[in-house]
Amino acid sequence: MALTMDIAEMTAFLDEVFPQVRGDFAIERMDEDLLVMRLKVVERHLRPGGTVSGPAMFALADVAAYVATMARIGKQALAVTTNCAIDFMRKPQAGRDIIARAEVLKLGRTLSVTEVRLFSEGMDMPVARASLTYSIPPSETA
Amino acid sequence: MALTMDIAEMTAFLDEVFPQVRGDFAIERMDEDLLVMRLKVVERHLRPGGTVSGPAMFALADVAAYVATMARIGKQALAVTTNCAIDFMRKPQAGRDIIARAEVLKLGRTLSVTEVRLFSEGMDMPVARASLTYSIPPSETA
Amino acid sequence: MALTMDIAEMTAFLDEVFPQVRGDFAIERMDEDLLVMRLKVVERHLRPGGTVSGPAMFALADVAAYVATMARIGKQALAVTTNCAIDFMRKPQAGRDIIARAEVLKLGRTLSVTEVRLFSEGMDMPVARASLTYSIPPSETA
Amino acid sequence: MALTMDIAEMTAFLDEVFPQVRGDFAIERMDEDLLVMRLKVVERHLRPGGTVSGPAMFALADVAAYVATMARIGKQALAVTTNCAIDFMRKPQAGRDIIARAEVLKLGRTLSVTEVRLFSEGMDMPVARASLTYSIPPSETA
Repeated sequence: MALTMDIAEMTAFLDEVFPQVRGDFAIERMDEDLLVMRLKVVERHLRPGGTVSGPAMFALADVAAYVATMARIGKQALAVTTNCAIDFMRKPQAGRDIIARAEVLKLGRTLSVTEVRLFSEGMDMPVARASLTYSIPPSETA
Repeated sequence: MALTMDIAEMTAFLDEVFPQVRGDFAIERMDEDLLVMRLKVVERHLRPGGTVSGPAMFALADVAAYVATMARIGKQALAVTTNCAIDFMRKPQAGRDIIARAEVLKLGRTLSVTEVRLFSEGMDMPVARASLTYSIPPSETA
Repeated sequence: MALTMDIAEMTAFLDEVFPQVRGDFAIERMDEDLLVMRLKVVERHLRPGGTVSGPAMFALADVAAYVATMARIGKQALAVTTNCAIDFMRKPQAGRDIIARAEVLKLGRTLSVTEVRLFSEGMDMPVARASLTYSIPPSETA
Repeated sequence: MALTMDIAEMTAFLDEVFPQVRGDFAIERMDEDLLVMRLKVVERHLRPGGTVSGPAMFALADVAAYVATMARIGKQALAVTTNCAIDFMRKPQAGRDIIARAEVLKLGRTLSVTEVRLFSEGMDMPVARASLTYSIPPSETA
């Protein structure tokens, strides 16, 4: 499905709707097959030992699913997360960013389902996986 | 199952192991039936419109399941979250703390399962529900 | 929320829409607070050792969430399961039915969320827990 | 990770441990990257309209994760499902088998995590996705 925005537009949109996390995330690839996003890990994302916290990984998976959905339906829609299932599988490497790879498996009229794998940058095996459902309210212009 | 700590000891333990979130959470009740924890909502937990962010609610559910498990197995153990399924059901009320009510459904030798409901303070219906699995490594003293 | 059907009507409706499982399930209580359903365990639900299979427990949780939702929205609607998270926590007792206790946590315009606990009959602690989302299509008469 | 069994050995093992579902499932590919399994859809897997039931799809995802795990750890181990999160995304096509594609994302000492996508045979987009955790008890010979 063709995308409605490019990376620059999407980044500006994210800064506007989520000012609290401005600068935490960077979109590295956004096309019809895959979205790649980076969590720029800083002190407040960490737990003792230098590992990245669960809530920080959840936040990355959630924003990646949001961006992947928005890129398809356009920024007029007010999509909200209704469900997330997340498996934490390995301890993230200290001192590395987390990279999310997100794939939209379904984009229906009222729901999207996105699968996300999270990696410590440079590692082969994922530190976590998540699947997220967004509820898409009826477009006002529909 | 009898608890190994009281609220004061648990709060001191949390401050020690999670210094990054010191002051965000307060334990209001902790006994064999139920754990009640409060997220003291401040600016960084919010989204536009005053609603509490998904990652902040995830963080509260996660720490509540952690505390409920630790209260039973004792603080020597290094439990880690392996899975969380969370449903976001209603928009939290602006300007209100979030209250978690957590119940341990299983405490096995290697896994615990905890169910958590999250409420905007003073509301009857939950804003979210979550179930979390913690993996409990073998005790060093066992 | 007031229910639209009683147990006899619901049972007749289930027999009509799910003829393949006729006789497997019995509704024991159905009111605004709680739905209680029984899986009448027979040979085809078992695994070696007499334990009840995972798919049989999933089926019970799914039908309980369906019945709890239908009881509220009425039988004209074609609700479909969109998500289920299930935790298997204990081995069911051999030779006992499984009892589901289901509670509707949210009934929105397009989604319902139901939480279900499953018990081996006569036991105190649940053998499994599940949370299920049903998608509710727009009513044709709306 | 090298596999401990080939398809013929695994099929014989499944017939032995799950006699109730003998003949329902066929392993079509089993190597270090991917497991492909088929649910041979027959009358008892159906719902009105010819669609495959949710419990039948759950059963396929569950057995695929089991086989993928067993292929790695060997058949002496008594792995049990502890968690499954499943998203039903499209209605299966009437009259077609369901094909599962399963990938083991983690194989730890006590837990495995497997991701499964389910397809109506011949279709490009999945009808469902699931992630499953198996708990692996300590080997008796370890």
